[in-house]
Amino acid sequence: MSWPKAVNPTAGGLCDIPISVDHLRRIGSLRRKLTRAGLSGIVVTHLPDVRYLSGFTGSSAALAIHRRGASLFTDGRYKTQAAAEVNAARVQIVQGPPAVSAVQWLAAQPGVEFAGFDATKTTVADLARWKESLPSKLRKSFLTALPSPAIEALRMVKDSDELELMRQAAALGCQLFDHILGYIRPGLREIDVSAELEHKARQLGAEGMSFETIAASGERSAMPHARATATVLPKRGFLTMDFGVILNGYCSDMTRTIYLGTPKTAERATYQAVLEAQEAAIQAVSAGASCAEVDEAARGVLRRVGLAEAFTHSTGHGVGLEIHEQPRVGAGQSTRLQAGMVITIEPGVYLEGQFGMRIEDMVAVTATGGEVLTAASPKALIEL
Amino acid sequence: MSWPKAVNPTAGGLCDIPISVDHLRRIGSLRRKLTRAGLSGIVVTHLPDVRYLSGFTGSSAALAIHRRGASLFTDGRYKTQAAAEVNAARVQIVQGPPAVSAVQWLAAQPGVEFAGFDATKTTVADLARWKESLPSKLRKSFLTALPSPAIEALRMVKDSDELELMRQAAALGCQLFDHILGYIRPGLREIDVSAELEHKARQLGAEGMSFETIAASGERSAMPHARATATVLPKRGFLTMDFGVILNGYCSDMTRTIYLGTPKTAERATYQAVLEAQEAAIQAVSAGASCAEVDEAARGVLRRVGLAEAFTHSTGHGVGLEIHEQPRVGAGQSTRLQAGMVITIEPGVYLEGQFGMRIEDMVAVTATGGEVLTAASPKALIEL
Repeated sequence: MSWPKAVNPTAGGLCDIPISVDHLRRIGSLRRKLTRAGLSGIVVTHLPDVRYLSGFTGSSAALAIHRRGASLFTDGRYKTQAAAEVNAARVQIVQGPPAVSAVQWLAAQPGVEFAGFDATKTTVADLARWKESLPSKLRKSFLTALPSPAIEALRMVKDSDELELMRQAAALGCQLFDHILGYIRPGLREIDVSAELEHKARQLGAEGMSFETIAASGERSAMPHARATATVLPKRGFLTMDFGVILNGYCSDMTRTIYLGTPKTAERATYQAVLEAQEAAIQAVSAGASCAEVDEAARGVLRRVGLAEAFTHSTGHGVGLEIHEQPRVGAGQSTRLQAGMVITIEPGVYLEGQFGMRIEDMVAVTATGGEVLTAASPKALIEL
Repeated sequence: MSWPKAVNPTAGGLCDIPISVDHLRRIGSLRRKLTRAGLSGIVVTHLPDVRYLSGFTGSSAALAIHRRGASLFTDGRYKTQAAAEVNAARVQIVQGPPAVSAVQWLAAQPGVEFAGFDATKTTVADLARWKESLPSKLRKSFLTALPSPAIEALRMVKDSDELELMRQAAALGCQLFDHILGYIRPGLREIDVSAELEHKARQLGAEGMSFETIAASGERSAMPHARATATVLPKRGFLTMDFGVILNGYCSDMTRTIYLGTPKTAERATYQAVLEAQEAAIQAVSAGASCAEVDEAARGVLRRVGLAEAFTHSTGHGVGLEIHEQPRVGAGQSTRLQAGMVITIEPGVYLEGQFGMRIEDMVAVTATGGEVLTAASPKALIEL
C-alpha cells in the first residue's frame, strides 16, 4: 500500500515543539481579503494552505470558510488526528471527496452567495464535479475563481511562529552540511553523498527532504539541475550540494559548493565572484527593496567580471510550508520585500564542459535588512 | 535551489538497461482512441504520460499529437537530453510554458479542428491561459476535455518493455526486504528502519522511493497509514514495513509484516488469516476476472473468520510509472483484468489498540493467472 503523501507531513512527535499557532488570526486575515474581493466564502483544497489556515496535517481535506464560520472536511481515517490538530474550524468527517462536501456546506450557509476557489490548484475535472454537486440554480454563478492569489499572499509573509520553525529547519540543514564535510572521502559516488545527507537528516528528526538532494561533482557541477549519479567524486574538482529538510512541516533549502583537492586559479576566482555576488544580494535584502533589485545586486557583480551569461537562473524564491513559494527573486520582479518574508539567495555560475558552482542561503527579511538563517555553514571555499 | 522534481526521474545512467521502447506504437494506439472520440489532436501535460508516450524524462514538457505528427515542447535546459531521449516526436525548444506552445502549435496544424486535454490533470488557470493564447475564433471550441481517460487506459496495460522494468523494480524491493531483516535489532526506532531501507535503496541504484516508507510497530501496526516515528521497536509485537523503489522510472510496492519476539496465539492466527486472504486474492487474478471478484476473494476469507470489518481499505491498485494507477481493485469495481496489467494485492487487518498487519505483493496479470513479481520475499510469518 502507499498512501497519498502529504506535501509536508508532521513529525509524528519527533521534533514537535510547543507552539500554539494562531489559526484564527490567519483565517481572519483571509476573511478580510475575501470581503474586499466581494466574496462571502472560500473553499480551500491545496493541502499546504489547509495546514496553514487550520493546522490539519492529514493527506485528505478541504476547508470551507465564510464570514461567520469555518469547517474542515476530512475522512474517517483522520477523525482523531483532526480533533487534536484543528481548533479554528469545526471538523466534519465525511465520505466521498472532502471538497465536494465543503462546497455543498458553503452553498447551504445563509448569506453565502459566492464562494472563491484557487484556479491554480483546482483541476477542470474537480470544478465540474463541484458544480454538479450544487443545486442547479447555483451551478453557474456560485463558484468564482479568486481574482488574486489570496492565500499565497498571506503565506508569503511569515508570522513569528513560522519564523521560529524556519530557523530550526535551517539550523538542521547547517548541521547536515557539517556532518557531510566529515563524511566525504575519495572513492565515494555522488549518490553516496546524497544518500548520506538524506539518511542523516532522518536520523536527526527530519520528516523528509524538501526536494531531491543534488550532489554534482567535477564537470557535472556545470549543470544547475544535475541529479546525483553514480559518478565517482573527482580527485580535483568542485562538488555542489543543494539540499533541504522538512522539519515540523517547514522546508529548509541551502547550497554549498566545496573543492576536492586544490583549485586552479580560475576556479578559485570564479568561486570568489559567485560568493561576492551572493553576499551583495544578501546586503540588498531589506523591507521595501524590490525582488528585481536584489536579483540585480547579484547579477551586477557577475556582469562586471564577464560571468553574467553563465548565471542562467534567477537569484532566489520564497520558501515556507512549500519549497517554492512567493515571491520570485528574479529580473523584472517588481514585488517589494516585506518584513517576515523568507527567501533564498542563490546565484550560481555554470561553465559547460568545465565546472560550476552555486552558493545559497535562506534569508528572513527584516525592517532594516536580512537575517541569514543558514549562517552557521561557512561560505569561504572549503578544500577537502 | 530546488528544481521541480520529475515524478519519476531517470537513473542518470545508474541502472539503465538496453531497452528500446516503441513509443511510435504507443502514440499510434492513442491516435486510434482520439479518432474514435472525434478528436484530431491532443495536448499531453502530465509528465508520466509525456514520458510514457515519448520517453522524455525532464521536469518541464508538453507533448502535442495529431494525426500526422507529434512535437515535444521543452525549455533550453533540456535541449541535449530531449534530443537523446525522444525519437517519436519532433523536439521544439521554447521559452515560456511548454503547454502554451503545444496548444498554439496544434491549432496551427492543417486539419486539426479540435484538440483534447485531460481535465483531471489540467488546472482551471492553465486552461484559461491556453485559451487566451489561441486566436479568438478558436477560444471557445478548440480545446475539449477528453471524454474518457485515454492515456490512463493505455498505461493500465503494460507492454513487454514495461513488464521487464517492473520485474526489476520489484526484485530490488525484495532485495531491500532481505537486507532489512539482517538490520533489524532491539533498540532501533521505526525511523531507523525506514531510513535504512531508503538509504540501501539508493545504494542499490534506486532513483528514489515511490512513496514515503511506512514502518509501523506494536500498537501502531493497527494504523494502516502510520508514518515511521521515533517509537522504539517493541520487544514483542508486529512490525509492518510498506515500501517501494523507483527504478528506471517504474515503481515497486510491497509490504511485509514480521514479528519481533514470539507471537501470541491470536496474533499468529490473525496473521494466518490475512495471509490466506492475500493468497486467495492472488489465486483469483486472471485475465477476464473483475476487480471486484479479486477483492471479494480476499474479503471473503476474512469475513469467514469475523475479520471483514477490520479490513478497512480496498485490496489493491494498479502500479507502473506512478505508484497509483488504474485499475482500482476494490468492492464494486467492475473493471475486468487484462493480461499485462500490474496490480498490488494487499489485504490487511487493523485492530485498534491491539495490533495490525498487511501483506502485499505486486502481481502481473497473465492470460491464465498472475505472475507474482515480489515472490522472492517470503510471506510465512518471520519471527525475529
